[in-house]
Amino acid sequence: MEKFNASEHPHLRYNPLKDDWVVVSPHRAKRPWQGQVEKKAVEEVPRHDPKNPLCPRNTRPNGKVNPDYKNTFIFDNDFPALMPDGPDPPKSDDPLFQAAPAHGNCRVICFHPYSDLTLPLMEVDDIRHVIDTWQSEMINLGKVNTWVQVFENRGAVMGCSNPHPHCQVWASTFLPNEPSVKDRTQREFKEKYGLPMLVDYLNKELQKKDERVLLESAHWVWLVPYWATWPFETMLLPRRHVLRLQDLTEDEKKDLCQMMKDLLTIYDNLFEISFPYSMGWHGAPTGKFLEEDCSHWQLHALFYPPLLRSATVKKFMVGYEMLASAQRDMTAEQAATRLRALPRTHYKHQSS
Amino acid sequence: MEKFNASEHPHLRYNPLKDDWVVVSPHRAKRPWQGQVEKKAVEEVPRHDPKNPLCPRNTRPNGKVNPDYKNTFIFDNDFPALMPDGPDPPKSDDPLFQAAPAHGNCRVICFHPYSDLTLPLMEVDDIRHVIDTWQSEMINLGKVNTWVQVFENRGAVMGCSNPHPHCQVWASTFLPNEPSVKDRTQREFKEKYGLPMLVDYLNKELQKKDERVLLESAHWVWLVPYWATWPFETMLLPRRHVLRLQDLTEDEKKDLCQMMKDLLTIYDNLFEISFPYSMGWHGAPTGKFLEEDCSHWQLHALFYPPLLRSATVKKFMVGYEMLASAQRDMTAEQAATRLRALPRTHYKHQSS
Ligand SMILES: O=P(O)(O)O[C@H]1O[C@H](CO)[C@@H](O)[C@H](O)[C@H]1O
Ligand SMILES: O=P(O)(O)O[C@H]1O[C@H](CO)[C@@H](O)[C@H](O)[C@H]1O
Repeated sequence: MEKFNASEHPHLRYNPLKDDWVVVSPHRAKRPWQGQVEKKAVEEVPRHDPKNPLCPRNTRPNGKVNPDYKNTFIFDNDFPALMPDGPDPPKSDDPLFQAAPAHGNCRVICFHPYSDLTLPLMEVDDIRHVIDTWQSEMINLGKVNTWVQVFENRGAVMGCSNPHPHCQVWASTFLPNEPSVKDRTQREFKEKYGLPMLVDYLNKELQKKDERVLLESAHWVWLVPYWATWPFETMLLPRRHVLRLQDLTEDEKKDLCQMMKDLLTIYDNLFEISFPYSMGWHGAPTGKFLEEDCSHWQLHALFYPPLLRSATVKKFMVGYEMLASAQRDMTAEQAATRLRALPRTHYKHQSS
Repeated sequence: MEKFNASEHPHLRYNPLKDDWVVVSPHRAKRPWQGQVEKKAVEEVPRHDPKNPLCPRNTRPNGKVNPDYKNTFIFDNDFPALMPDGPDPPKSDDPLFQAAPAHGNCRVICFHPYSDLTLPLMEVDDIRHVIDTWQSEMINLGKVNTWVQVFENRGAVMGCSNPHPHCQVWASTFLPNEPSVKDRTQREFKEKYGLPMLVDYLNKELQKKDERVLLESAHWVWLVPYWATWPFETMLLPRRHVLRLQDLTEDEKKDLCQMMKDLLTIYDNLFEISFPYSMGWHGAPTGKFLEEDCSHWQLHALFYPPLLRSATVKKFMVGYEMLASAQRDMTAEQAATRLRALPRTHYKHQSS
């Protein structure tokens, strides 16, 4: 019988963080595409748009005027999904009609006064302001909130409704689904094997070096997880066991600036566009968890880019994916090989 | 303190089938939208396109010629994600690098010879052929496969790569994530409360009639589930306790044709376009499960439409949704009120 070849034969891979499986169908990438083609992202964003509510000195729809900010600028989302106050739903004893309180804060962080500067195009010193802001938001919002989700939606195809580079912080008094599952899986792993899942995982990936590791620095490793779902999904891990973003040391933060710039440059270079994605940080929960043993957690950043074939053809997670199981059209190793081959100089700065 | 009002105040709702929560932020719908606007679906699809590989008598990319079919036409997907044969991945005893065999079949069902006839525009007698084909595919593929997923991706925005109305059947030797979770939650519910979850749920919804029920027929009920995630997500349930699509009686099938036509007409009428969605059927697993007690299952169809505000502005499940929790911008009841107000005559057939 033919020998198994991961880049040829369909198989399942287990995601130990989510406790579920992804269908890997590497041969599927060969099918012709006659479906939807996205608009190419507008490359020429003006540095300052007097009508953009995220730019310095402009007036937002609610009448507030932005300061003449010089690096990051943080404000409360004018249309928050979660709010600190407000009445709670009544208790129900019917298991099929259960509502629960949802409180929290939604904040917006503009990265830089210039609308045309995405993270990979920013100077490392400016990226540093972003990382410091993430830390201070984590600390402040984490005092009363159980979960502080820092995330960036980049690109219109990822639902980003404003081209000015920014990220968001949604903090909540409850532990949302994803971190709640990861809290369980990481706790069970540590109980069973004695060390944190992602610490063990990183050690093993570093031994298998040429398979899925993309970039290594003194304090960070960027890789395609074995169980990646999105075509070019990646994970960024600190080498040290770190529970939360706010625990990063001076050296780790400095190194992170360069790492972020490098990895996002590689992403932009893949299709020579401002690469769309949702990214975010997952670390140990906060609030009352700050007092509890969370040593099963390891801090990590996740990057979920939607594109598959080109700058304009994305992977649709629909139909089978929504109803049955996530499915990918190439292996994690094939994605790693393509990403690893790309230059670390941004295509906009390359002399051609 | 202010009284809780579900259409004003953020809250969580529990999805007992998935055992997770959705964040409901009804006030969010008020925010202005400056983000991506989808292309309006092409309304004028030619009845027969000599270049479309799904039309009767045409040649597919692999050289096979389609028959001059008169109602449904079924064939093996030319680029299947799952295949019946092929080597299996080697066993690994590392919990972080687990692969498993994935076998199965992928089939395509064209609904009708005409490319311009979507389900709501078809005659009920023609819809009947589709339902009969679903049943026969479930029976044939369910003999060796554990799960047979019947699903339709409609519209380019849902990754549908061919405008000729069709659905797909992906059958697998494994139980995918979604049905695997639902198997557990429904089993636990029946053990605890003595009756199938969705049978109990439907009874309760019928008592609360005007809240989320949309349409009732002799054998079927169409409703917005209390825990709906997508803005206009709905569920279709038989009145009787039915395990699988193949168990539907003659009367239930006849009635289902009209119900499908009505509900899909209402969807099309919402924004007066061919309404995009992913839909699919979930019932008890097959293969070896055919011999086991699956009485905790209740057959249901799920409709997941992506649109939120208009024919061209969809709900993006990104960022927070991918990293933390699904979130919706209006309540299930608000969606139900809007859908209930729509006529059952298709906008293309209305005299204006
Ligand atoms: O098979 P199709 O229609 O070409 O492909 C579509 O449906 C599949 C199953 O839901 C998805 O995996 C694809 O991403 C989507 O584009
Ligand atoms: O807050 P924004 O950028 O307007 O909105 C975007 O991000 C949110 C959080 O991921 C999503 O819920 C929205 O669907 C998306 O369009």
